[in-house]
Amino acid sequence: MATQRILDFLATRRPNGPCLVVDLDVVRDNFCAFEKALPDSRIFYAVKANPAPEILRLLASLGSSFDTASVAEIEMALDAGATADRISYGNTIKKERDIARAFDLGIRLFAVDCVEEVEKVARVAPGARVFCRVLTDGEGAEWPLSRKFGCVPTMAVDVLRHAHGLDLEAYGVSFHVGSQQTDLTAWDRALADAGRVFATLAEEGIVLKMVNMGGGFPTRYLKDVPAAQAYGQAIFGALRRHFGNRIPETIVEPGRGMVGNAGVIKSEVVLISKKADNDNVRWVYLDIGKFGGLAETMDEAIRYPIVTGRDHDQMAPCVLAGPTCDSADVLYEKTPYPLPLTLTIGDEVLIEGTGAYTTTYASVAFNGFEPLRSYVI
Amino acid sequence: MATQRILDFLATRRPNGPCLVVDLDVVRDNFCAFEKALPDSRIFYAVKANPAPEILRLLASLGSSFDTASVAEIEMALDAGATADRISYGNTIKKERDIARAFDLGIRLFAVDCVEEVEKVARVAPGARVFCRVLTDGEGAEWPLSRKFGCVPTMAVDVLRHAHGLDLEAYGVSFHVGSQQTDLTAWDRALADAGRVFATLAEEGIVLKMVNMGGGFPTRYLKDVPAAQAYGQAIFGALRRHFGNRIPETIVEPGRGMVGNAGVIKSEVVLISKKADNDNVRWVYLDIGKFGGLAETMDEAIRYPIVTGRDHDQMAPCVLAGPTCDSADVLYEKTPYPLPLTLTIGDEVLIEGTGAYTTTYASVAFNGFEPLRSYVI
Repeated sequence: MATQRILDFLATRRPNGPCLVVDLDVVRDNFCAFEKALPDSRIFYAVKANPAPEILRLLASLGSSFDTASVAEIEMALDAGATADRISYGNTIKKERDIARAFDLGIRLFAVDCVEEVEKVARVAPGARVFCRVLTDGEGAEWPLSRKFGCVPTMAVDVLRHAHGLDLEAYGVSFHVGSQQTDLTAWDRALADAGRVFATLAEEGIVLKMVNMGGGFPTRYLKDVPAAQAYGQAIFGALRRHFGNRIPETIVEPGRGMVGNAGVIKSEVVLISKKADNDNVRWVYLDIGKFGGLAETMDEAIRYPIVTGRDHDQMAPCVLAGPTCDSADVLYEKTPYPLPLTLTIGDEVLIEGTGAYTTTYASVAFNGFEPLRSYVI
Repeated sequence: MATQRILDFLATRRPNGPCLVVDLDVVRDNFCAFEKALPDSRIFYAVKANPAPEILRLLASLGSSFDTASVAEIEMALDAGATADRISYGNTIKKERDIARAFDLGIRLFAVDCVEEVEKVARVAPGARVFCRVLTDGEGAEWPLSRKFGCVPTMAVDVLRHAHGLDLEAYGVSFHVGSQQTDLTAWDRALADAGRVFATLAEEGIVLKMVNMGGGFPTRYLKDVPAAQAYGQAIFGALRRHFGNRIPETIVEPGRGMVGNAGVIKSEVVLISKKADNDNVRWVYLDIGKFGGLAETMDEAIRYPIVTGRDHDQMAPCVLAGPTCDSADVLYEKTPYPLPLTLTIGDEVLIEGTGAYTTTYASVAFNGFEPLRSYVI
């Protein structure tokens, strides 16, 4: 996944310290793959995955829309050339003054998941469109979601009815099946729930128009175009099944799927040691860890591919840890990571699939280490 | 724990958005309490806990020494007025070029926990003092340490012997009993291990001089001076027991104990909602969460006291979450947090005991939210 362009950049520039390099060609390919797999859906890139201006400008120029989590992200998307009608304020947790600011900036599409949030929107963004997030069970996802966002489908009916009553446009339903979701029946179950919300409100004369299917598209399907199309077809089939011949507009919000495989982190082995002479695992310490950008290794949820210059040598399991004086800054310990026995202090390693959810997760200055630098090429 | 000075500052300045306010008077009190409780130990403040320049300057002026994790922290301590002989490079995971840079800056005291690290120090910091970190079991601590730092005591003997052979000064042993350690026998066990390392090397003519007892002193003991003195006496007793009448110099490295209770985070309730009509817990969303500075709520390890203006009203359990679009950004869910039933969107809450491990843990810009602002008064 380290493209030739990334390898050339690293070989030529030889940046000091850990850094992320993102290849825009891969982002472009991903955008096209999404368009091909889901030709009838609008693509709202989840800005939080990687808000680098170069990425936002590329996607804006390709016609992408943008899912944002804060006023700052709205401003970034606008700065990148997106018009306000291509931006949604997708965070269900918003201060009323931030909703007002977004409305001033032209934003008309807001996520909600309760009556209380609807009332904020109604007060400061009159007439805006709202979509209600519905809870899904997240089964089958590599990074399952908690119950933090969304409400049960029966409550979504109340929420959207309340919005309608406050002269907002009850616009649709959203869900998120969990990150890297590979179980297609998860989409089917969520679309069935969405279909029931549509049907219930339609009986009262409230006609919803949109289903926001969120993110969760596994990156690996995208590289394989037939698989991506099969994915799209499965989703289309589920829409047909649950909405009949009144298929609504659909939105998708890829984040990791758009930029995850476009980025590679270059890191350096700082130390290799054992804790006792008879230990059977080595400890390998890198110059990047949980607080330097690899927060998603939390609970060892995401297991990044790691490439070294010695991968043809014999491998043995290691505990992999970051460079800070924090004992929680361990990347992989429960399931040790196989690395070459010849790995040496000072070696460079490439951590692949790190284009999403790394740079902005980095801490400001924990232990005095500077945040992860990023190069978008 | 919100002092009158902090309350006055918040009432007068009314800062917008979440922020940390640290009262330097409390830091001064804590420093004096440590001096009183452990009159024979040198105090090395763990800079990583909170590197605000005002805190470092105060502690430097009070005569504190400094435990640092990186070259950047060394530079901060020097800038604050500490001389190089009052600074240790306490991270066992260091790039060789960073050791060289520290040596250039005058640093002569380095932590190690393996032969490989000793060799780096010997190459670029000739003649420096090294102390070897020994693994402890961390039992009884609220924030137990993994095996990330240190080696078993028998290996520490080899490591220090190796240092001696490379013309470094084999200076001592360090350990860390785990954060907020309340079990005094943990100190006794660790000091027994340290004593055995001293004795074994003394037989070979290598005379260690120092025991670095790390941090882990529970804040609550400090407020109560008799208890702090009892703590000091228990440690002194253990030293006497394991070192006889050749008690070594001792170092302590308080971080949380020095600044934790000096800081209060002001936050705002962004949303209160339920996920279903029949849910028995409310979800309360604050404008600060795991990625905005409260990283230590990871696995609900640290449970901060939260004060609202309605605490005289009836309380009921809540799930408490942060404002980002990340489902992992939940502070307390497994053990819901009791908050007043009358709590309302827009209310201000104070999160106490947040002076340590908050500002620098904050992410750079996750979801577009700015890092935690900090005022030191």
